[in-house]
Amino acid sequence: MALIHYPVVDRRGNLVTSAVTNLDIHDLARLATTYGLSRLYLVTPVLEQQHLVQRIIRHWSEGFGASYNRDRSQALRLVKVCNDYLAALEDWRRLAGDDMAALLTGARQRQGLGFRHARKVAQSKPLLIFLGTGHGLAEEFYDRGWAQLLALRVAGYNHLSVRTAAAIILDRLVGERGRPLIV
Amino acid sequence: MALIHYPVVDRRGNLVTSAVTNLDIHDLARLATTYGLSRLYLVTPVLEQQHLVQRIIRHWSEGFGASYNRDRSQALRLVKVCNDYLAALEDWRRLAGDDMAALLTGARQRQGLGFRHARKVAQSKPLLIFLGTGHGLAEEFYDRGWAQLLALRVAGYNHLSVRTAAAIILDRLVGERGRPLIV
Repeated sequence: MALIHYPVVDRRGNLVTSAVTNLDIHDLARLATTYGLSRLYLVTPVLEQQHLVQRIIRHWSEGFGASYNRDRSQALRLVKVCNDYLAALEDWRRLAGDDMAALLTGARQRQGLGFRHARKVAQSKPLLIFLGTGHGLAEEFYDRGWAQLLALRVAGYNHLSVRTAAAIILDRLVGERGRPLIV
Repeated sequence: MALIHYPVVDRRGNLVTSAVTNLDIHDLARLATTYGLSRLYLVTPVLEQQHLVQRIIRHWSEGFGASYNRDRSQALRLVKVCNDYLAALEDWRRLAGDDMAALLTGARQRQGLGFRHARKVAQSKPLLIFLGTGHGLAEEFYDRGWAQLLALRVAGYNHLSVRTAAAIILDRLVGERGRPLIV
């Protein structure tokens, strides 16, 4: 799974870089660990924020932090910081092999892969699931010809945080007893 | 849905009052609205925190906040602050009728209602779903004879944030196209 902070769009559709938040890291790392994922990529081009993430990971994996909260330290082991999303893709390809597939997500997706189908794909090959912060992934992702997941709810209000959306997506792809998406 | 800040337990199992967080309110209000719930109860006995929640709701439902972000303002309309969980239950009973049912959740639940069954219950009567902050609902909830949901994942690492757990629970009970749990 890759959490993208650039390129994403804001409420007006302008291209922006969103800020990394401490809570996203912990929520998504614990979620990814619960569902047996192998990697959680945090993608940002902002060097200071890359260092911030590294510092958070170090805090919880060394010394006092690690012994105080082992669950958190275990979860953060999945996290890898990347400068851009192609670097994340490259790393995942090295780990998972050439037969991997990228999978885009977005609240506005009205056509694309239904979840029943996506679940079958997830069982047959390693996926890299892209999640946008802000108001979603930039247009350039959708121009790449990668598979796209349908929006989570097909009608009405649909303004989930990236944390809760990621949880629902992983649960639909893996399920209660499903084989983890692990490599 | 009711988010409980007291009585809950800490990592050692001691009874504590957890702090209300701004982010829980927004994440859960948007989640509840997406899945068509009628109420989100925030339960805390701490007066200052009750006032904090009221202030947050007012900020986003009046004046600049409301026009800046209508989705947020719509979501926060569901939120109701309660002093204790019996007040939330009482309010829900008034709204939903006597044929409602309380449903407890918890990461440690190894026996209880499976999700397939729970989904049928959710379709047949109004539910009040109790979510614990901290390290989970206090023992007294489980002593009341109320229905309990199984833990979300049956084996291995299972340390989700209350935000992501709530998302998965609602999605399992309502689903992609499911009729909302609305009253």
